[in-house]
Amino acid sequence: MTYTLYAMQSSGNCYKPRLLMRQLGLPFRLVDTDTRDGGTRTPEFLALNPNGKVPLLVLPDGRTLAESDAMLIHLAEGTPLLPADGYERALCYQWLFFEQYSHEPYVAAARSWLHLIPEGRARLGAEALAELHDRGHMALRVMEHRLEAAPWFAGSAYSIADIALFAYTHVAGDGDFDLAPYPRIRAWLERVRRTPDFVTMDWRP
Amino acid sequence: MTYTLYAMQSSGNCYKPRLLMRQLGLPFRLVDTDTRDGGTRTPEFLALNPNGKVPLLVLPDGRTLAESDAMLIHLAEGTPLLPADGYERALCYQWLFFEQYSHEPYVAAARSWLHLIPEGRARLGAEALAELHDRGHMALRVMEHRLEAAPWFAGSAYSIADIALFAYTHVAGDGDFDLAPYPRIRAWLERVRRTPDFVTMDWRP
Repeated sequence: MTYTLYAMQSSGNCYKPRLLMRQLGLPFRLVDTDTRDGGTRTPEFLALNPNGKVPLLVLPDGRTLAESDAMLIHLAEGTPLLPADGYERALCYQWLFFEQYSHEPYVAAARSWLHLIPEGRARLGAEALAELHDRGHMALRVMEHRLEAAPWFAGSAYSIADIALFAYTHVAGDGDFDLAPYPRIRAWLERVRRTPDFVTMDWRP
Repeated sequence: MTYTLYAMQSSGNCYKPRLLMRQLGLPFRLVDTDTRDGGTRTPEFLALNPNGKVPLLVLPDGRTLAESDAMLIHLAEGTPLLPADGYERALCYQWLFFEQYSHEPYVAAARSWLHLIPEGRARLGAEALAELHDRGHMALRVMEHRLEAAPWFAGSAYSIADIALFAYTHVAGDGDFDLAPYPRIRAWLERVRRTPDFVTMDWRP
């Protein structure tokens, strides 16, 4: 038995465990599951994840795990992608929660409205988009500030914190975020792309 | 040197590390910091947390850690409040991210509008409140479902997942959430209150 990942290819949250499993050399089976056609609302899927969201990971023993960043921690435990140093590991957790609470709801949401949802720009409206941009740029400024002090989010080495933040930052332009004011973020995106066994968002196992 | 916690007493996110540190017997100093009077936007505070949010924990060595749930993991590592079993620990992470992404933005937000923000009910509006209630009840149903299978969120024992979910669930009524349809959640709230060294939200060290 191996891992099975229920995922939507265009989702940054689903890209996170795909990239990590590739970089850790963990083989897995991908089951395409689309939130937009009700794929996460079928009785079969809700039996796997009562919260009705992808990604959903089925472990080799058949047990399930939801929440992309929980998968990252679980899969990276005992590997160099979760720092061995206690403080760097704590910072890793900090950036994972930052990503889900202060970054994804704005940076990913703008991308979803402008890039994935039919006529999303009109349905969202200019005022709501401006609000997403304001909050998203706050998150990007916090990231730029962090990268003044360290090359990677957890500190000295590439970790799952970088994977989590890369997922939606590298496609922020899809939500009309201009990364020009963030030279350190742009350099960090390039460093992530040069990590061993890096794969782009369209990669499939 | 000991821990210092910058926190707002009425915040559930700030209650989480207070409750955990009390239950772990970790002494700490509390510095009241109110988001509503600009306390998280001063240059001094932004030097500690560039994301401008409480809670913010200063470790005994002077280094800082943001994000309430990152504090929970960091402080609980090596204690019984973070499960030793790998799968239960993974579930613990899952519920922490669930709390911040699918629960807090609705259950805590409704409480904030109705209980903490002056004239918040009128400023929020009935339609937006109904949306918070819809999404919050989705989260509560997922919790109720989980508690059909296990007494605690990570599985067999009380953990930081319970602390994280207790923080805003026990005051959900402040946001006009009725917990009557959730008998398992209500029984679980009572179990949490009976854990050793439990303290209520108004507790100060």
